[in-house]
Amino acid sequence: MSISDAVIHRLPVYYRYLKDMEKDGIVQISSHELGRRMNITPSQVRQDINSFGGIGRQGYGYPVHELLIHIGKILGLDRNHNIIIIGAGNIGGALVGHKSFESNGFKTHAIFDNDPKLHGKELSGIPIYPMDDIKNFIKKNKVEIAVLAIPAEAAQKIADMLIKYGIKAIWNFASLDLKLPSSIAYQSVHLSESLQTLSFKLLHMNENNESNEKH
Amino acid sequence: MSISDAVIHRLPVYYRYLKDMEKDGIVQISSHELGRRMNITPSQVRQDINSFGGIGRQGYGYPVHELLIHIGKILGLDRNHNIIIIGAGNIGGALVGHKSFESNGFKTHAIFDNDPKLHGKELSGIPIYPMDDIKNFIKKNKVEIAVLAIPAEAAQKIADMLIKYGIKAIWNFASLDLKLPSSIAYQSVHLSESLQTLSFKLLHMNENNESNEKH
Repeated sequence: MSISDAVIHRLPVYYRYLKDMEKDGIVQISSHELGRRMNITPSQVRQDINSFGGIGRQGYGYPVHELLIHIGKILGLDRNHNIIIIGAGNIGGALVGHKSFESNGFKTHAIFDNDPKLHGKELSGIPIYPMDDIKNFIKKNKVEIAVLAIPAEAAQKIADMLIKYGIKAIWNFASLDLKLPSSIAYQSVHLSESLQTLSFKLLHMNENNESNEKH
Repeated sequence: MSISDAVIHRLPVYYRYLKDMEKDGIVQISSHELGRRMNITPSQVRQDINSFGGIGRQGYGYPVHELLIHIGKILGLDRNHNIIIIGAGNIGGALVGHKSFESNGFKTHAIFDNDPKLHGKELSGIPIYPMDDIKNFIKKNKVEIAVLAIPAEAAQKIADMLIKYGIKAIWNFASLDLKLPSSIAYQSVHLSESLQTLSFKLLHMNENNESNEKH
């Protein structure tokens, strides 16, 4: 499948909107209405959905449930993913308690932390283990995805170790860009950068308002 | 100032890289070396820095400290921002304990939650108040930024209320796209979507490797 980066990032957005529509009992949706809700053009909607081998007949709109299932499969949400979290701090604790992950097939099995005081304890019912146990745990539990919720200083070294032990995907919350082999799936959430972008918008909002409409 | 959306989102990345370089004692940096580290082309670096009235002389590279200060000002990091967090759950608790925010001038003053059992308690030393106190608190403490760490169902209504009470910027962690007036600064962190994008990459990694190098 050849899907552009822009579409890859819109896929979960389609998924979210279609899920909400399904909840609201909407069975069929036109590209116009879907585009209106997502704030993109109808032709963009049609082009996107075509690009991932979409469903639906010209002039009839898209069947919400079928499209949801189709996009879910493309996103890999039709299977279970085994996750471990590295770092039992604030971010690790928040992620382990995030209910919507598990409903999408992302199951957190363990948290690893190098603080001996935390070993044997739990966060949201998930056990905290010593870092030394990672290697065996990954192998035994067929863990594919590791979440890095640790300081930037340690993150590259730990990522390298995780990959050596068989991890295939890294979800990074540390404030750095990891250098990883091209065979590893990689996605970062940079919270400080998001807050700084908000700060920029706040500071320059008035200038922008003179020439632009905000979307 | 007229800065493109792409550059706005790269500004915090420049800030992060320059900060790390300053820590490492680097005084001057070429567009080649900055581009190499950030994985963008040298000409992109020069174009970006020109677009926000950059510093530095042709052939001499950029002075790290001055450029850092300059970008910090553009991002509004040279001033203090008063923040409140709505929702004392996992995400709210993680954000209130995030140390790097305060070092950049983002000071969280209070958390608001509608659970009476939490009122009078604290998270990372920040008090939790009833939702009814928000209006007076915003006015009295000149709060500009509100963080929404609440379920999607309640988020639009609460955002509307916050704006009525004087909030100028919303950092949204709820899983929906808010409809806000164009005068309000707005930035979302969609954790589920980020994890789903990672899942997509994990599933389609092998296909991509055949034709593309990962960056």
